[in-house]
Amino acid sequence: MNSDTICAPATAAGISAIGIIRVSGEDAFKIVNKIFEGKNLEKAKSHTVHYGFIKDEKIKIDEVMVSVFHAPKTFTTENSVEISFHGSPFIGKKILETLMKNGARLAKPGEFTMRAFIHGRIDLAQAESVADLIFSENEASRKAALNQLKGGISDEISGLRKDLLNFTSLIELELDFSEEDVEFADRAALIKLIQNLRFKIQNLLESFQYGNAIKNGIAVAIAGKPNAGKSTLLNTLLKEERAIVSHIAGTTRDTIEEILHIGGFPFRLIDTAGLRETNDEIEAIGVEKAREKVRKAEVLIYLAEVSETDFSHDFETINSLIHKDLKLIVCLTKTDLSESEKWDEIENLFRNSVQFPFDFIKISAKENRNIQDLKDLLFSFVEKMKSGENDVVITNERHFEALQKSLESVNKIENAVNQKITTELLAYELRTALEHLGEISGEFTNDEILGNIFSKFCIGK
Amino acid sequence: MNSDTICAPATAAGISAIGIIRVSGEDAFKIVNKIFEGKNLEKAKSHTVHYGFIKDEKIKIDEVMVSVFHAPKTFTTENSVEISFHGSPFIGKKILETLMKNGARLAKPGEFTMRAFIHGRIDLAQAESVADLIFSENEASRKAALNQLKGGISDEISGLRKDLLNFTSLIELELDFSEEDVEFADRAALIKLIQNLRFKIQNLLESFQYGNAIKNGIAVAIAGKPNAGKSTLLNTLLKEERAIVSHIAGTTRDTIEEILHIGGFPFRLIDTAGLRETNDEIEAIGVEKAREKVRKAEVLIYLAEVSETDFSHDFETINSLIHKDLKLIVCLTKTDLSESEKWDEIENLFRNSVQFPFDFIKISAKENRNIQDLKDLLFSFVEKMKSGENDVVITNERHFEALQKSLESVNKIENAVNQKITTELLAYELRTALEHLGEISGEFTNDEILGNIFSKFCIGK
Repeated sequence: MNSDTICAPATAAGISAIGIIRVSGEDAFKIVNKIFEGKNLEKAKSHTVHYGFIKDEKIKIDEVMVSVFHAPKTFTTENSVEISFHGSPFIGKKILETLMKNGARLAKPGEFTMRAFIHGRIDLAQAESVADLIFSENEASRKAALNQLKGGISDEISGLRKDLLNFTSLIELELDFSEEDVEFADRAALIKLIQNLRFKIQNLLESFQYGNAIKNGIAVAIAGKPNAGKSTLLNTLLKEERAIVSHIAGTTRDTIEEILHIGGFPFRLIDTAGLRETNDEIEAIGVEKAREKVRKAEVLIYLAEVSETDFSHDFETINSLIHKDLKLIVCLTKTDLSESEKWDEIENLFRNSVQFPFDFIKISAKENRNIQDLKDLLFSFVEKMKSGENDVVITNERHFEALQKSLESVNKIENAVNQKITTELLAYELRTALEHLGEISGEFTNDEILGNIFSKFCIGK
Repeated sequence: MNSDTICAPATAAGISAIGIIRVSGEDAFKIVNKIFEGKNLEKAKSHTVHYGFIKDEKIKIDEVMVSVFHAPKTFTTENSVEISFHGSPFIGKKILETLMKNGARLAKPGEFTMRAFIHGRIDLAQAESVADLIFSENEASRKAALNQLKGGISDEISGLRKDLLNFTSLIELELDFSEEDVEFADRAALIKLIQNLRFKIQNLLESFQYGNAIKNGIAVAIAGKPNAGKSTLLNTLLKEERAIVSHIAGTTRDTIEEILHIGGFPFRLIDTAGLRETNDEIEAIGVEKAREKVRKAEVLIYLAEVSETDFSHDFETINSLIHKDLKLIVCLTKTDLSESEKWDEIENLFRNSVQFPFDFIKISAKENRNIQDLKDLLFSFVEKMKSGENDVVITNERHFEALQKSLESVNKIENAVNQKITTELLAYELRTALEHLGEISGEFTNDEILGNIFSKFCIGK
């Protein structure tokens, strides 16, 4: 299975110092050796690097370094070669063409990792973490992906499966002896196991909120009346001039999204168009877009300006935007423009009028007052999400769904036991639970799922 | 000199299967070892690859493969390490930061290659060829750069210098014994050597026309009356729909340049705005731009349509555009619209009216007639340029200028000998010639020149 030899560029497209082409498969050494002028690669030791030239027939294409990796201690577990060439895309293309002329085939996206999975070096969750690592753009996602690659999730799942497997064997044994009406499996112990299992699965499912936030960031809408200082705050947080700051109300017509990292964790800051009634048609679209974004955001930072006297419209807006999972922060802006008595007065106004829990922060972007407090507050939401001492974080939608299905099965098993249902049905539910857990590691899977997973990989990985 | 340890990304920016970071310098092993969990790299053999993790303090950043290269058999001749990580730019940045925290410094562009030059592993012409290889975008430039890297130009120049050096030593010996009025160096033999040298330098200088064309492509203007089929021909040659083809005269307002490769050689096809008189101001700018491009082009393909009856305007245009080095091709287009007698008739009209040598080709882009002949004709211009059996091609402006100065010196030497000028002056001219030749290999150079050369390199090379 898959014994043909594949090749692909492994480095990003573009001019660079070095480009790498990967070759993997039974004939990797033989094929590269045919086009390599230098040491006989078929006789090279594993994990060694060799200087020479890649040539097409008699024409030298490039001066290269070739690394040789012997099966099975390689990424794919197959014989593998990495060709390091002068990073001209033109040269890379020529080398690939020459490899293909000599018996290699261009790899499909993710095919190297798929081979590592198919040959059993890593399980499916680990394979998926390879792509997650490559696409990781912040510290939190990098950490979660590396933990998953090192087997964090796989170990957790295989632990759960092992307990369940023992019981399933006993239950199936009962089926074999069904005419004798014996119970090999202690039902009380099974209930205990199932409850433990449910607890662990629920824990993992809960970690997905954090895992998902790692991947997609936490959406933080910044809203408030026009001129309340939204763009200024955004710029201060990002220390970059991304939004157009102006003193004309209604300047920021389109929503702007920027990633802010706090403690290595991504927040998607959404600067919204001024949330005010307007007769301007285009502006009205902006306002509607803003409301939509805010409705979906997990955090709302609502800005109110210190020199404002009438906040009734702000209260209205806030009340219209809150939803049950929202974390609300009311930010009193431009505090450099007034005294602190005024600040407390306004806070009291808000406390009395907004019927929803919120944090109140008094900032001044101009004087950089309490900006760090605001950041700390945002990060505290993440910390709360990361509840539990569990290091394993589910970041993958597919794993989340498989765990949900496992949870359903586990609940059914408990019901089955409690209602003293037939051993056949119990065995069936146990097998179903095992399969759902096995989907995560790839023990139970199909070509469609695999194709779907690996097609999202880079080529060359 | 330069004993500090440098690091830099060596692969192109962007998400990819693999990213490479290079480290070079005395402490390369020590520094990487500090952040590597795996084999003790300070004890690793040269040219071996090791699996492990890069970590920042206790935090694992990525699972990596690390290649170890011992001085002096490395690219820079220094101890070198290459770290192959999961190709996330975020991870690459983290690894670089960790390296820098542990004593490495971010390399300047070209600094790795500069070290290879400074430590004498390669000469300056070879160092320059590394960048040429990386930037090579076609077969001809790749070939010339690889030949230069392998020492093609360096050997040629050092051959020339060696002959000259022998004579210079003898002449300088004469200076030491100047009071005794002896001639150690045979003046007749010197003249012979100088003539030989001039011949070789001239050959190299001539190769620059080809070398320059390799780098910049040959400019081929495609001109003709509006609707003569310029855009259609361009598209046929490129087999791509780049220009807007339309039946309205004057559609192609701006000039469009496309690269066409014939036999691995680049031609810059320039589609010009219809070269006609116009009252439209914007169109007039296009026409003037077209004329300018045509005036600078090395080849002019002038298109005339077969159903046209009056070519007097075409003759006028051609006569106004020709210059002494131009290669002119008159292309009869849309030959599918008439019989071959008509074709010959038109050819005769052109032969009688255009007072400049030209090739006449009868094409039909629609029927793909003679398109290959046109390509062959274009390629023949390149073949002619590549005159001489000399494999060495000067592609570098700096080398060209140094050779020009060498030629001047050589001429002065000949004059000096013929006019029996003082030995002092002769010695001076000889040294000057040696210096100019030495500029190419970098034997005579200065920091400004070096800085200028290497700053054009990629970072990590």
